[in-house]
Amino acid sequence: MKNYIKHVVRIFFALFFPLIISAQEHPSLLVTKANLPALREGVKEFPLLKNSFLDIQQSVDDELINELLVPTPQDAGGGYTHELHKKNYQLLLNSAICFQVTQDVKYLNLSKNILTAYAEKYQDWPEHPKRKENHPSGRIFWQNLNDCVWLVNAIQAYDLIVSELSSQEREIIEKDLFIPMAEYLMISHKAVFDKIHNHGTWSIAAVGITGLILNKPEWVNKSLYGSALDKQTGFLKQLDELFSPDGYYAEGPYYQRYALSPFVLFAKALHNYKPELHIFEYRNRLLAKAIETVFQTSYTNGLLFPLNDAIKDKSIKSNELILANNIAYSDIDTNPTLLGMAKRQNKVIISDAGLKVARDIFLGKSKNFDYKTTLIRDGKDGKEGGIGILRHGDEDTQQTLVLKNTTHGMGHGHFDRLNFLLYDNGFEVFPDYGAARFLNIESKSGGHYLKENNTWAKQSIAHNTIVINEASQFDGNVDRAEHFAPTHITLYDHDTLKYVIASESHSYPQTKISRALITIQINELKKPLIVDVSYIHSDNALKTVDLPYYYIGQVVDQRKKDVEAKVSLHAFGEKNGYQHLWLNSSYALQSHGDYITLLSNYKFYKVHFASQSPHNILNHVHLGADDPQLNLIPTRGIVLRQENLHEAVFAQLIETYGDINPTDETISDANPAVKNFKITPAEKNNFNISFEVGARVFQLETDLTDNIISNIKIEQL
Amino acid sequence: MKNYIKHVVRIFFALFFPLIISAQEHPSLLVTKANLPALREGVKEFPLLKNSFLDIQQSVDDELINELLVPTPQDAGGGYTHELHKKNYQLLLNSAICFQVTQDVKYLNLSKNILTAYAEKYQDWPEHPKRKENHPSGRIFWQNLNDCVWLVNAIQAYDLIVSELSSQEREIIEKDLFIPMAEYLMISHKAVFDKIHNHGTWSIAAVGITGLILNKPEWVNKSLYGSALDKQTGFLKQLDELFSPDGYYAEGPYYQRYALSPFVLFAKALHNYKPELHIFEYRNRLLAKAIETVFQTSYTNGLLFPLNDAIKDKSIKSNELILANNIAYSDIDTNPTLLGMAKRQNKVIISDAGLKVARDIFLGKSKNFDYKTTLIRDGKDGKEGGIGILRHGDEDTQQTLVLKNTTHGMGHGHFDRLNFLLYDNGFEVFPDYGAARFLNIESKSGGHYLKENNTWAKQSIAHNTIVINEASQFDGNVDRAEHFAPTHITLYDHDTLKYVIASESHSYPQTKISRALITIQINELKKPLIVDVSYIHSDNALKTVDLPYYYIGQVVDQRKKDVEAKVSLHAFGEKNGYQHLWLNSSYALQSHGDYITLLSNYKFYKVHFASQSPHNILNHVHLGADDPQLNLIPTRGIVLRQENLHEAVFAQLIETYGDINPTDETISDANPAVKNFKITPAEKNNFNISFEVGARVFQLETDLTDNIISNIKIEQL
Repeated sequence: MKNYIKHVVRIFFALFFPLIISAQEHPSLLVTKANLPALREGVKEFPLLKNSFLDIQQSVDDELINELLVPTPQDAGGGYTHELHKKNYQLLLNSAICFQVTQDVKYLNLSKNILTAYAEKYQDWPEHPKRKENHPSGRIFWQNLNDCVWLVNAIQAYDLIVSELSSQEREIIEKDLFIPMAEYLMISHKAVFDKIHNHGTWSIAAVGITGLILNKPEWVNKSLYGSALDKQTGFLKQLDELFSPDGYYAEGPYYQRYALSPFVLFAKALHNYKPELHIFEYRNRLLAKAIETVFQTSYTNGLLFPLNDAIKDKSIKSNELILANNIAYSDIDTNPTLLGMAKRQNKVIISDAGLKVARDIFLGKSKNFDYKTTLIRDGKDGKEGGIGILRHGDEDTQQTLVLKNTTHGMGHGHFDRLNFLLYDNGFEVFPDYGAARFLNIESKSGGHYLKENNTWAKQSIAHNTIVINEASQFDGNVDRAEHFAPTHITLYDHDTLKYVIASESHSYPQTKISRALITIQINELKKPLIVDVSYIHSDNALKTVDLPYYYIGQVVDQRKKDVEAKVSLHAFGEKNGYQHLWLNSSYALQSHGDYITLLSNYKFYKVHFASQSPHNILNHVHLGADDPQLNLIPTRGIVLRQENLHEAVFAQLIETYGDINPTDETISDANPAVKNFKITPAEKNNFNISFEVGARVFQLETDLTDNIISNIKIEQL
Repeated sequence: MKNYIKHVVRIFFALFFPLIISAQEHPSLLVTKANLPALREGVKEFPLLKNSFLDIQQSVDDELINELLVPTPQDAGGGYTHELHKKNYQLLLNSAICFQVTQDVKYLNLSKNILTAYAEKYQDWPEHPKRKENHPSGRIFWQNLNDCVWLVNAIQAYDLIVSELSSQEREIIEKDLFIPMAEYLMISHKAVFDKIHNHGTWSIAAVGITGLILNKPEWVNKSLYGSALDKQTGFLKQLDELFSPDGYYAEGPYYQRYALSPFVLFAKALHNYKPELHIFEYRNRLLAKAIETVFQTSYTNGLLFPLNDAIKDKSIKSNELILANNIAYSDIDTNPTLLGMAKRQNKVIISDAGLKVARDIFLGKSKNFDYKTTLIRDGKDGKEGGIGILRHGDEDTQQTLVLKNTTHGMGHGHFDRLNFLLYDNGFEVFPDYGAARFLNIESKSGGHYLKENNTWAKQSIAHNTIVINEASQFDGNVDRAEHFAPTHITLYDHDTLKYVIASESHSYPQTKISRALITIQINELKKPLIVDVSYIHSDNALKTVDLPYYYIGQVVDQRKKDVEAKVSLHAFGEKNGYQHLWLNSSYALQSHGDYITLLSNYKFYKVHFASQSPHNILNHVHLGADDPQLNLIPTRGIVLRQENLHEAVFAQLIETYGDINPTDETISDANPAVKNFKITPAEKNNFNISFEVGARVFQLETDLTDNIISNIKIEQL
């Protein structure tokens, strides 16, 4: 049995060619001619490649019986012609893949027919009737972006089948479809083509890849260096500008996933055609970092951190990230932890890269993906804040803390600097709401962002961060938020003590806010303790300083046993998101000894509160006020509030315990361990936080420099 | 390889003995001496048995290092001594099992030490200090029930190790522990021992099994026939009284699961010791039916229908149901679908029965469990209502409707006659709240039922059923609810048309309520349509008639696009559960054409409304008012209301569609198909409900007999 495997593998090694692309030899992009025999064998032998291919083949076979429809474009996103033209480009590419793998001519004919049908009609289509003012239009779709995506897919399909086409067929498809389409994108919509923006990346990727396949060096050069060829725009400039040196994309993980695709596809095409560019080495392997970073900004359950506008279901299994992972492993760095990620994705792309990944997994080379405690810097120089991530424990049970202090993220940014997320045991504990949007649900504003995305989801109060005077950061002004970078973020990672400290001095006038998230591993406790400290200092008198924690689960205990039993409710506030919260109850916190205990996915999370303020209030809130269309997802939280002050400290300690077995109806490790969590009266430049575990007293010394938390030390007293 | 398996199996067949218990040969209960060699081999060979054993062994090994603690009983349920004595009997039995499987003397010593330690102390312990008035006490635990469970476990452990004990050791354990304990249960708490009630079953099982092992025929006879030996109480009488002929236990599935254990354990002991009783054949194989019924009252995701007081996590994986399933297969009926259930349970008991199950699964004899469309009758003669269950589709995607119209279920019953539950695609769509209780969570009323179990969970408005004049059925009076059986329930099961009709004439004065749940499979639709019709007729003027649907998911569409945007909320009512609901918004429904569409676990559920009443109101509500301890779980619903009438029809049609892929961000089958759902003006003894799918018109003819829905016909017009 083993010998048989070895034998088979030896054959593959022999067949698996390194990259040598002869000019105009096809296929030449994700699949290359030299590797076709190995790919066809690999689809039979390597389970991951086989299953991934069978899924695609099934999707194509399901469509083979249907009539090909290429209607005149008329509907906006989600509408009939929109969805149909989307389906057509996917079918076109998938069928071309099926042809190269199976060599069955029915797939060739389907792809050819789709291209020919579009070639017949494309030039008669004017600008799309549902285009929007001030938004670049397409001809197949309401917006330019989708036309670019159409071309990126179609040109890959063409590359896969062009060697089977007659010269007459080629001429029709190139002259009536690809050339006018590329010129439309490059010339008619030059502003998009030259824009340093994700939409620009799609445009240059579409034109650039098409230029490589059709042998149009001028198109390729314009895609690389901008239409003026002055390198002020174009692909390289985009690589310089759109990512931080750590490969972070300012719109956040959800959009980074999407933005990566044209970068990866165009880079892979350049890698094949213009190896002398060393595109994957560009800017210290920037694309490899960007791919690594999107995985690092996910939790071990596979879901991306839903920072900024984000659909919360989006996971590492999305097709864009499968492509990115496969290319990263195959063409940049054969790091076996990428195979671990590919195993979690449970799918590969049908390509040279997917073959290599599936083969190496089959050969047992895979290692678990390396989820890191790390600081991901933002800003093109890496000096504009970032995201701090603290992780502890194995994949299944990992405790993960996220502190966000990035640049705003353009139109998809949320006003959520110093936002904190907590994951544990495979689930969210303190979540981010993500975007207010029901993607693809026509009845919910056509599947677009809802009004509540602005009135709730983007507002500061929708996040686990400091909110002053019931106003959002930067008063909810995107331009100002874009203008001011976060002040700083640092990460310290020691064996038993880890922390992130971040600060922000621009989001409220004459006010500095800093926050430290600290994890402390104490021997007898299964999970690290979490200390969350915020320090707010203002030259102005602050009327209210709020800190929400939205939570998953149920409050099962609190110091104050009975809150008010309400028979009527009022909204928590009037604007800036507060109008969407119902205020369930409020009570004054003691300076120490107060807590709530959450039961969340069969674990306890006890949040201890300490403060120096005599007016520290805990508000229980839930989402859903001023919601006439039932657009808001039920969400519960507490909002800590301090009032009428120049300086505030919020200090919380979160301990995790409890092992509840719902099947056996048993519970163990049911008791908290931390006592006497409190703040010791502050001196001028520091304050201390102390707590007890058993007979031991721990003290966190928090240094302030220029009214910002600058350092944390822990000692056992 | 295959030959090797055959060879091994042949050896097992040779070793696997039929049941022949010699008097006083031990072990003799779940494990019998003759099968020990086969069990020891089976633990090595059959994966299910092996893994089940390794779990137990690990749990014992984890405790071996700890000091054995047998404290003087002092704490109530959930408290320190309570949990410790619970842990001790589990450890005692598990360690004895480990000894017989491994023959490692360390396990023998642990079990022996536990028994000896209790024997030393038991007689010094008085009635438990935390006993409650009017509730039978124990000595180890606060209530008698737990002492019985302790003995049932301990005597099994004793049976497993007694053959290794010296006669002196036996004498100490029997005289100082088992005999006084059995006499305490049988004599000091004779009322419990003779009570036709689940607590009585535990008492007679404890005494009866102990009697078999210690060879005390008098104890056994009293357990079988009552302490007066007059057969007015005792095991056989309990089998007659506590289950319906279909094996339904009136408290509901959650308690049926628990109640089954002493029945199964004592019956298995009798089966071994007194085969002439043919206990498993008793009352047409009643116990086999009771075991089948508890599985039939579960959804395909494994969770039991949470009817009456029920912890919603409870599944077919609970240990009681693993025991029941294994015994059913091994000792009553080798039905291969029980092996399918055992595979879902993924665990067997370490016993002769578990060996047989694991072996037969290993041999490939398993078939999927047969989830049925069925009527489970209630009442000891099967004439007191029941539960109708309509199922369609495969296990993963099954649509399951439940209509409950049973007797009250004693102290654990809810006022929920004609309650409707819907499951689909692996999840609840219209759920039941279950019990208001955080089991084992000390901070939540010590883990006992919460106050809100009475004020909310038991009330009629907490269920998807008809509620009149904002009062619960029977005015919330348990005695009256127990006194009046439901009027009727019938089930019709045809290929494309299935329905359950049930009625109830006692729960409100001079009022008859009937409800029909109908599923109609129409060719072009993936899922059957559901029609839910209720007819209410009263001699009195009814002020309000309410029908709630609590739902999982989000309302993504409704006919009235904007409901009122509220900035303050009020409770829906003042008592009977209504005080716990917030009224979000209300609007008048049209007589037809009104609907809401839910998005629930990536599927759409469109609920069409039709009515004849001019005053038909839809109320959006959510749970959480008057909840000072945050005891209520967030829940949303709609409450349909008709006002000031003698007669009301509620007709809803629910269609299921939509296939949303969150990973690929695609949606298909996104459009509903049903149009013009309406009621045709009623004639004297019937009314018609019609709807259109495509060009076809369907009509449901609903016959009324004596003001109760008596028959449903469907025709295509």
